[in-house]
Amino acid sequence: MTDFTRTRSLFHLPEGIIYLDGNSLGPLPLAARECVRRLLCEEWGEMLIRGWNDAGWMEQPTRIGDRIGRLIGAPSGTVVMGDTLSIKVYQAVAAALEMRPERKIILSDHGNFPSDLYMVDGLIRSLGREHEIRLVAPEDVAGALDESVAVLMLTEVDYRTGRRHDMARLTRAAHAAGALTVWDLAHSAGALPIDLAGAGADFAVGCTYKFLNAGPGAPAFIYVSPEHVDRIRPALSGWLGHEAPFAFDLDYRSGRGIERMRVGTPPIIAFAALDAALDVWDGVSIHDVRARSMELGDLFIAEVEKRCPAVELVGPRAAEERGSQASFRFEHAYPTMQALIDRGVIGDFRAPDVMRFGITPLYLDAEDMIRAAEILGEIVAGGLWNRPRYQERRAVT
Amino acid sequence: MTDFTRTRSLFHLPEGIIYLDGNSLGPLPLAARECVRRLLCEEWGEMLIRGWNDAGWMEQPTRIGDRIGRLIGAPSGTVVMGDTLSIKVYQAVAAALEMRPERKIILSDHGNFPSDLYMVDGLIRSLGREHEIRLVAPEDVAGALDESVAVLMLTEVDYRTGRRHDMARLTRAAHAAGALTVWDLAHSAGALPIDLAGAGADFAVGCTYKFLNAGPGAPAFIYVSPEHVDRIRPALSGWLGHEAPFAFDLDYRSGRGIERMRVGTPPIIAFAALDAALDVWDGVSIHDVRARSMELGDLFIAEVEKRCPAVELVGPRAAEERGSQASFRFEHAYPTMQALIDRGVIGDFRAPDVMRFGITPLYLDAEDMIRAAEILGEIVAGGLWNRPRYQERRAVT
Repeated sequence: MTDFTRTRSLFHLPEGIIYLDGNSLGPLPLAARECVRRLLCEEWGEMLIRGWNDAGWMEQPTRIGDRIGRLIGAPSGTVVMGDTLSIKVYQAVAAALEMRPERKIILSDHGNFPSDLYMVDGLIRSLGREHEIRLVAPEDVAGALDESVAVLMLTEVDYRTGRRHDMARLTRAAHAAGALTVWDLAHSAGALPIDLAGAGADFAVGCTYKFLNAGPGAPAFIYVSPEHVDRIRPALSGWLGHEAPFAFDLDYRSGRGIERMRVGTPPIIAFAALDAALDVWDGVSIHDVRARSMELGDLFIAEVEKRCPAVELVGPRAAEERGSQASFRFEHAYPTMQALIDRGVIGDFRAPDVMRFGITPLYLDAEDMIRAAEILGEIVAGGLWNRPRYQERRAVT
Repeated sequence: MTDFTRTRSLFHLPEGIIYLDGNSLGPLPLAARECVRRLLCEEWGEMLIRGWNDAGWMEQPTRIGDRIGRLIGAPSGTVVMGDTLSIKVYQAVAAALEMRPERKIILSDHGNFPSDLYMVDGLIRSLGREHEIRLVAPEDVAGALDESVAVLMLTEVDYRTGRRHDMARLTRAAHAAGALTVWDLAHSAGALPIDLAGAGADFAVGCTYKFLNAGPGAPAFIYVSPEHVDRIRPALSGWLGHEAPFAFDLDYRSGRGIERMRVGTPPIIAFAALDAALDVWDGVSIHDVRARSMELGDLFIAEVEKRCPAVELVGPRAAEERGSQASFRFEHAYPTMQALIDRGVIGDFRAPDVMRFGITPLYLDAEDMIRAAEILGEIVAGGLWNRPRYQERRAVT
């Protein structure tokens, strides 16, 4: 049984803050400080260039990829780290399209994270505009699969509503239609059990700064099914994806297996924080995390609805259909979120009118959920959001 | 006048090491430790998600881009940070090709860094294989420019030989032929005075872990001439290059100016180290750095040639035609470099037979150069390279 008192003690949680935005940026794992210090002083500082060999820097993208793999049902050697999620989406979709040259549709839903759509839009332009994105409502995805669809590209958990797609069922449906799948796990990795291999997913991508707590702008990951990987010639064919990067050949030859999805020099300082963030998962069962997240989510929704009749739950009510977040629609969502933050409850706002709260059992408990709902109740009931200083708009990720 | 005793005191240089590999990975600037600690503990730890606004994380790609801009002759607002050099090459060449739709040749030289060629190769495949890379000898570049050339893509300083292209002259020649230029400044930024605006360069890209000392895998930069930037629709159209990332529109619209070359969430921990590394340049004249680097390079070459007749200088003898390195060809280059490293002189090996030494006046002086040459002389004259343990091959960046 996972000890959530212990996991909570592994994070720095600022005094007086209830942090419900770990689905956007997880908090600092305490061990990251020492892990990064050691990287700077003992590895970079002392080993200098030799760190690439002697400290194993060059192997980190696959070594850490394997650590992530264990959280997402991906066998060893199928996940590699690097770049950003947007770049990894580009790589995955480019590879999938090349495997279905006769098909021209990328199917997605309009709950997908916009950057995924933007990256595909850019890719399509490079490919000569023969391809098209077909966007449907999340519930219409299965019905929109046909023999024109090359790739089904979905984010498993909707970043705004928390609505969760059924990965296994949709992957089967895609395969039945002859399409390949690209799953974005941004709001899944570290939040839910995922079984990429079991679901037969073709490609998956994700980030590590949300439920994996690796820090602002932490590196992304990409999974490619072992069934496909050896046939892929990467669109972003960088030297560290080359079969022999240090031969400095003038011609590109794909590296072995998942290594070919590497591009440039890996971000070693960021990897130190990521490694520390993954240490938190030692001894943690993702099934326990999921069970606790469903409990805390149900509790939070009940406590909010009890106090705020004007606030409307967005997305599924059934915990098993939701990711690890609860979102509410409210006409005054923006100033209400500012008022919440002012009182130490940090969630986030998603345009035009959604308040989003991440439910993260590694460092949140029932008391936090109740206290946060109480404060939200006070703000909504008391009209406290209606102060000029809460109206001012600012960018928030 | 730049005080090189002071700049040397700003780095951690391990006991007993003469570090001649700062052209591959610069050493740790001492201030990076505190700068990264502050980012982790006071920004990420305390501000959590609010760091994106309150600590200015979201603006770092352009704010730090401007700091780099001052070292490469790029006006404010023309440089942005992020990703890796390989990704930035892809963005630059894709944009340039789109501006010359009727031309199909990317001209480069076979001294270019292979990853640049690999990335273009991948791009060409996506574009439908109508384009072609034309590779010529470095000295034949100007003569190979004709009306078929869309883009002249060159690395200013050859990573192996140190041979320096004349950026202003070749840019003029490219423009006279109707071609655009993409300059890779990997071995130039922080090593030489660069005047991108003065030279009329169209695009430039570079990394920050070599002569800019920002640590392993530190972020890359891209420059786009203000003349072009507003007409570019990025090939890698990520959400942070969108006009309004937080509107979460389903359609992509390019951001303002250079902001459109941003892709995904920026690497904030790496930026903390980069910021500290750039602080070293306050009060430093890049012209002084260059003058001192030429002196030290001439000294090192003379001292090596005096002691090692079998070792042959690669690349130009005239300091002004060389970047900030000295390379030598030697039949036994690989084991000799291992023997050097074993004795505390760190340079690097480039296949098949080149020993490469970075000349970095920020933290090296004449005494270092003479001592390194003495040790090399002892190894070569005494045949010390000929020990079994120096023959074992390992990857080195």
